[in-house]
Amino acid sequence: MLSVSESAASDRASLLASLAAAVGERQIVSGDNLGRYNNDWTGDHRGLALAVVRARGIEDVAATIRWCHTHGVPLVPQGGHTGLVAGGTPTASGNEVVLSLELMNKVREIDPVNGVAIVEAGCVLADLKEAVDKAGAYFPLSIGSQGSCQIGGAISTNAGGINVVRYGMTRALVMGLEVVLPDGQVYRDLRGLHKNNTGYDLKQMFIGAEGTLGVVTAAAVKIVPKPTQVETLFLATSSTPAVIELFRRIRTDSGDLISGFELMGAPSIELVCATEPNIRNPLSAIYPAYAIVELSASGGPAIKPWLDTYLATLMEEGLVLDGVIAQNQAQVAEIWALREGIVESQARFGAYLRTDISTAISAVARFIERGTEAVEALVPGARCLPYGHVGDGNLHFNVIRPMNMTPEEFAPLIHKIEDELFTIVDEFGGSISAEHGIGLAKRHAFEARLEDVPRRLMQTLKQTLDPRNIMNPGRILS
Amino acid sequence: MLSVSESAASDRASLLASLAAAVGERQIVSGDNLGRYNNDWTGDHRGLALAVVRARGIEDVAATIRWCHTHGVPLVPQGGHTGLVAGGTPTASGNEVVLSLELMNKVREIDPVNGVAIVEAGCVLADLKEAVDKAGAYFPLSIGSQGSCQIGGAISTNAGGINVVRYGMTRALVMGLEVVLPDGQVYRDLRGLHKNNTGYDLKQMFIGAEGTLGVVTAAAVKIVPKPTQVETLFLATSSTPAVIELFRRIRTDSGDLISGFELMGAPSIELVCATEPNIRNPLSAIYPAYAIVELSASGGPAIKPWLDTYLATLMEEGLVLDGVIAQNQAQVAEIWALREGIVESQARFGAYLRTDISTAISAVARFIERGTEAVEALVPGARCLPYGHVGDGNLHFNVIRPMNMTPEEFAPLIHKIEDELFTIVDEFGGSISAEHGIGLAKRHAFEARLEDVPRRLMQTLKQTLDPRNIMNPGRILS
Repeated sequence: MLSVSESAASDRASLLASLAAAVGERQIVSGDNLGRYNNDWTGDHRGLALAVVRARGIEDVAATIRWCHTHGVPLVPQGGHTGLVAGGTPTASGNEVVLSLELMNKVREIDPVNGVAIVEAGCVLADLKEAVDKAGAYFPLSIGSQGSCQIGGAISTNAGGINVVRYGMTRALVMGLEVVLPDGQVYRDLRGLHKNNTGYDLKQMFIGAEGTLGVVTAAAVKIVPKPTQVETLFLATSSTPAVIELFRRIRTDSGDLISGFELMGAPSIELVCATEPNIRNPLSAIYPAYAIVELSASGGPAIKPWLDTYLATLMEEGLVLDGVIAQNQAQVAEIWALREGIVESQARFGAYLRTDISTAISAVARFIERGTEAVEALVPGARCLPYGHVGDGNLHFNVIRPMNMTPEEFAPLIHKIEDELFTIVDEFGGSISAEHGIGLAKRHAFEARLEDVPRRLMQTLKQTLDPRNIMNPGRILS
Repeated sequence: MLSVSESAASDRASLLASLAAAVGERQIVSGDNLGRYNNDWTGDHRGLALAVVRARGIEDVAATIRWCHTHGVPLVPQGGHTGLVAGGTPTASGNEVVLSLELMNKVREIDPVNGVAIVEAGCVLADLKEAVDKAGAYFPLSIGSQGSCQIGGAISTNAGGINVVRYGMTRALVMGLEVVLPDGQVYRDLRGLHKNNTGYDLKQMFIGAEGTLGVVTAAAVKIVPKPTQVETLFLATSSTPAVIELFRRIRTDSGDLISGFELMGAPSIELVCATEPNIRNPLSAIYPAYAIVELSASGGPAIKPWLDTYLATLMEEGLVLDGVIAQNQAQVAEIWALREGIVESQARFGAYLRTDISTAISAVARFIERGTEAVEALVPGARCLPYGHVGDGNLHFNVIRPMNMTPEEFAPLIHKIEDELFTIVDEFGGSISAEHGIGLAKRHAFEARLEDVPRRLMQTLKQTLDPRNIMNPGRILS
């Protein structure tokens, strides 16, 4: 007679054998080799997969899904595991099969005249950007994780990033998809048409669905002319409202040249300059709020001469107190390092609150004021670091521990601060997840504020498309 | 005992009385006053409604839908009845209730800083554009019917038009919707957030669904800075491929300044100049193919000086054979009249074939060549007039009768030509309806080429959301 754990181990072995028979022994990773598939890059989410299937093509994806469907085994589609909400990593249950798309990584076709590239889901974003660049065009999705994240994951999470203000979220860049549905059938439209009003636009269902309605295996994505003029500015202002006013002004006055517009509060700039030895503030004084602005164009009238005059006007008016325009690539890198360094800076203080909220652009400054007051009242001395894509109304309103508190003392307060900030987000009619998605990590907060009608619609969609609930179950909806 | 027709009349009267009780007598139009609600503007589609409900607000919409749900009566949501595929007009059955949104026409809010306007579905597009203009911004949806069409109809058909090349289809402009579902419940998200990745993006289902999944009652739409520099060009080239190459060149070289790019073949220009006394070709000779190009920006570096030099380069290279840049509003109007006049010109020859196809932009020239050959082989002397939004791969490849044929002789051949062209569209992996939708008029051609998996997904969506099949039944899907 087998003990309970021996029985479980035997079940597990027979499941693995059956899976191997279905998709081929060589495609299966199990046991000690699961490490890098179990965890996301933050280390916040550590799971344990039953096995990983590394699909070589759509047939392997379909075979895996059919096998999961037959055996009632949950499937977790996985891209570059760079997500921030535990949407693409297994739970610790040991019962989920991870489907890795990493071997399906070809750029199949690039047509710069049509403005479309056809790419497999496992292609690393940076590789796609490079291939498109070599073809003389530009793929305008730029996110911190682009060296690791895969295009299938970007599509499944409707990724954002710094170019959204100009080119939209990933959804706006998807012109067609190939998706294996929860029953193993394939929906495919990779024709790359810019306009097509024939029936329901089915691809929309799978974009941002975090792998809960099917597995994206390939996509037709929009590519655009390559920017040949790029101007990067670091501008200081008197306040957050002044940064928002600056956004309004530059957006109106520049003629859609803005391709990036990031807010950095003084605390963020001070922190990053204090903690990162290689990062310095290019301005000699400290100001209340800063903007990193990128203007770009693929040609057309010269930006630089106009910009020099325009910036002088903004300074005469007093809207910009001080500022620099990068004169070379080193200075461009220096400016962006201020933004990118913040991630590492924050982590130096131990556990901290990371949020990804959005409000109307016109409400961002008021939100920061209200949020900062609320955090100060809750945890005096906690340092608020609101920064991010204010050109889209999207803030990473992060909070690190007070100087007089240890990381251990601060850790239990993080969720309380998050709750408080999310309540203010609700008051502002904002979103608690602007670009990161829901996954497992934000599901509780999401479902707590999900109204009846959208809840019913989402549940209906899920149940109709995935009646056995095998596709990334528990992510987004419980 | 009642005769059959008396019995039907009595049923009808009792249905009308019940409807009036549900939504209020004053909101009902019936009998002789139905005229303008029964027909679309082309006159191609003439129907007969049971009654029209003119909703004053969302409560009337919900009451009407609930009544239709209870009584199993089909509902046809109607905007400005400017559609081209019989999607918003009743059939001749006399059994359908038309729901007019024309009284729900307010622009509720305009926030230029956030870049969002909140508008009711019945607002005429031109009225919305004007209100946004007064607020100092621009709503970038520009279509021929904008003086009559309503924003709810534009959303429900995912309307296109001349600005798509810059700003995308209507879908790209919708940031939130208020929709009454087929069971009378309301889905609402009018927060106007630029970024929000919390669960499935439900609004996408209703955009372009032609009123078959619910009735759009209000929307949050994207508004952008108002163009302050607009340059309009009429350029002559040696061939259609040269026009496509010109698009590629200007798109790359101008830095996303293109806000319109229309192809006009020589036959279209000759026809419109020959038939419309007030329209003239601003160029002195006839060339094989033309482009109307609009470049615009809301500010930024001056376009005109750059453009003068750039156009000279294109002419030196021989890509542009001749051309004009409009110097004033009268000349702008003169250039666009060439494009807009074509609709009336064609109609002067009696029944003609009107299509709305798309292919990859890189395939447009080959499509025109193949299509023209095929039409010539089928009906010698028939005149092909391919023109349209080639910056999006979208052609109105229209065909008028040969000079030696009467309209009556030509009429029965129209469907044969359409079939032939649609077969070529299929070979090119194109779309038979790029921007007009399916409605009743294109349903047969659409369903004939709908593959099993998308058919099943579309039917599932429809049946799940509208199990009684009351929402615009028979449109898109039979």
